[in-house]
Amino acid sequence: MTQQPDAIADILAALRIRQPLVHNITNYVVMNSTANALLALGAAPIMAHAAEEVEELVAISGALVINIGTLSTPWIKAMFKAGVHARKKGVPVVLDPVGAGASRLRTQTACDLVAQVRPAIVRGNASEILALGGAGGARGVDSQHTVAQARAAAVALARTHGLVVAVTGPEDFVTDGQREARVRNGHPLMARVTGTGCAASAVTGAFAAVEPDAFQAAVAALVVFGLAGEWAAQHTQHPGSYGIALIDGLDAVTPESVRAGARIEMGR
Amino acid sequence: MTQQPDAIADILAALRIRQPLVHNITNYVVMNSTANALLALGAAPIMAHAAEEVEELVAISGALVINIGTLSTPWIKAMFKAGVHARKKGVPVVLDPVGAGASRLRTQTACDLVAQVRPAIVRGNASEILALGGAGGARGVDSQHTVAQARAAAVALARTHGLVVAVTGPEDFVTDGQREARVRNGHPLMARVTGTGCAASAVTGAFAAVEPDAFQAAVAALVVFGLAGEWAAQHTQHPGSYGIALIDGLDAVTPESVRAGARIEMGR
Amino acid sequence: MTQQPDAIADILAALRIRQPLVHNITNYVVMNSTANALLALGAAPIMAHAAEEVEELVAISGALVINIGTLSTPWIKAMFKAGVHARKKGVPVVLDPVGAGASRLRTQTACDLVAQVRPAIVRGNASEILALGGAGGARGVDSQHTVAQARAAAVALARTHGLVVAVTGPEDFVTDGQREARVRNGHPLMARVTGTGCAASAVTGAFAAVEPDAFQAAVAALVVFGLAGEWAAQHTQHPGSYGIALIDGLDAVTPESVRAGARIEMGR
Repeated sequence: MTQQPDAIADILAALRIRQPLVHNITNYVVMNSTANALLALGAAPIMAHAAEEVEELVAISGALVINIGTLSTPWIKAMFKAGVHARKKGVPVVLDPVGAGASRLRTQTACDLVAQVRPAIVRGNASEILALGGAGGARGVDSQHTVAQARAAAVALARTHGLVVAVTGPEDFVTDGQREARVRNGHPLMARVTGTGCAASAVTGAFAAVEPDAFQAAVAALVVFGLAGEWAAQHTQHPGSYGIALIDGLDAVTPESVRAGARIEMGR
Repeated sequence: MTQQPDAIADILAALRIRQPLVHNITNYVVMNSTANALLALGAAPIMAHAAEEVEELVAISGALVINIGTLSTPWIKAMFKAGVHARKKGVPVVLDPVGAGASRLRTQTACDLVAQVRPAIVRGNASEILALGGAGGARGVDSQHTVAQARAAAVALARTHGLVVAVTGPEDFVTDGQREARVRNGHPLMARVTGTGCAASAVTGAFAAVEPDAFQAAVAALVVFGLAGEWAAQHTQHPGSYGIALIDGLDAVTPESVRAGARIEMGR
Repeated sequence: MTQQPDAIADILAALRIRQPLVHNITNYVVMNSTANALLALGAAPIMAHAAEEVEELVAISGALVINIGTLSTPWIKAMFKAGVHARKKGVPVVLDPVGAGASRLRTQTACDLVAQVRPAIVRGNASEILALGGAGGARGVDSQHTVAQARAAAVALARTHGLVVAVTGPEDFVTDGQREARVRNGHPLMARVTGTGCAASAVTGAFAAVEPDAFQAAVAALVVFGLAGEWAAQHTQHPGSYGIALIDGLDAVTPESVRAGARIEMGR
């Protein structure tokens, strides 16, 4: 599908014009970097978790991103409340099941969110996607599995729940249960910065806010995020400054650089 | 008032000597960048929100900054407890009504804080100040209104409650209900970084800790913060590194650069 | 003890190979910078605080770091639960008593954690260590005392509770009640960035995960952290960018630079 880079370039251009509001219920570790990633990309972040206000804020947002990185009971309640309301209002939901498989609380919460909120897109690393499919064995929040190992679980999860699954790693894999894409943009330094996966999920939310085809939105997000990572690696080789350069990269990537640099293989 | 830049330069010099302790009850997104902004300016931040300890910490602080960016019930209780105690102890309070107008929880909490805590200074964007005056219609936490549109609401709010209102945007407007100032320092990239408004509020707290005239403190803070933003724009044009350079700028700005670069118009 | 730099270089090399998982229950301000510091060093961070999951996560971790920087009741409960379980499982605990002495809540919580969790290492500034020994008088979270003033309190605390105490400042002091070390690495700019002490504690946790001798682990951590600070000062003189460069420095420091640059005086 040679037209893919052009289509992604067009979605990025639309995102920059529409500046979608993305509501994030996310973890404490990445709130700042995620908000800055969205701003750099051209979207508008809102971070809010109070059960009293999430429905109002979801209703004015173009997408909702739920990230379970630092769970606790009141936050879980707000995630379900916001997620169910988003679904009711037709606001696309992206779920990032951080650390699913590492604790029962995380695995259970992630599975329940998939079942009850029915997100448009789930983005996780290989271990997290395997845990959603019933396989255990994460170590903390890092993936202990390869993307290839999670491929079948991703397809099964997508088919069972009617959603798009994006497994990120050295090569990303995206599927809606029928279509499949491999995205080869990115850089190894991305794994040396906390919250790059979380930022990828938030960026996916911004794309889902402007592109109704969730599969296409996820592929576009991962290409753009990967290109930002490549841009950043041209500016530094140390992880602290790389994390900052990655945010700069989300500002620097253009529809033209997408056309020139997207590395996608469409399957299946 | 040609003496204004000199007066502001003197307040900055005093701040650098006194290194005021600024107690922040602020949102999760900006805690790190706010603390770093205060440290770079020459103040000493403390971030604490437990109802059990806020009164003790307020009592040893030179100012209290209350920011409602990521509200929840226990934090609201601590904000009122700390704010009321600060007022009793004569510690100036700066309120940042983040997202007022975007949800009932935020609008109501901000209005109640104004009425019950009686802050010395309220700093917000135009939409937030309009919301405090009874007008609705924010989109998330970004301003949907111009500073000029909020001018009358700011003056009315200042007069009704006997406080200083600072409306920030491309041009800042500060009033105590009688005096008025427009501050033209700053740079458009400041709007591309999360938490610049929050940092401006914290910096305003640091100035209020050393300058008893709250109007003068707010004007001085916005001049210095704007000059830091101008300094940062000489070092980068991308938002990730700009956010870091803005903190560097708070360290780099000097009484001399205030005298040379302050752009203030006193009214009325 | 001329062999010390070689021993520390070996521990750093082992850490880079083993990439220990370090579980942090820490404050909101520094979660991001702490996680990035650990990643840059070569360790793997996990940040989690829910009482429902801390025991599971402690059990898979190489060390637990408890930091009381932004306390609240539910977090305190999780700290005790995680700490007691870590002790039971033989997972070394590092305690950072942020702001002990500044409020009764902090002093009491820190003292109770020392008594009930029995951490392997306590790392704090001079005022905090004095507060743990029964002396009061901190101002916020900055130290109001010199490391020399806290020396006797550190030795007494170490002997009473059978743990290692690391007092950090312009010169660091480490003791297990018998052995003593002074570490002279570091740079004054470290005090201008929020969370450097917290990051030093997390780095200490990573070293404790790979080096069974807690005294040696603490000395190694402070040498490596100080060298990172020296590296950073060669790249910038402003505090915003210095905070980022400090993380880069944790990546840049090597066993060779430890051998060449460690400045340790062993006592007693």
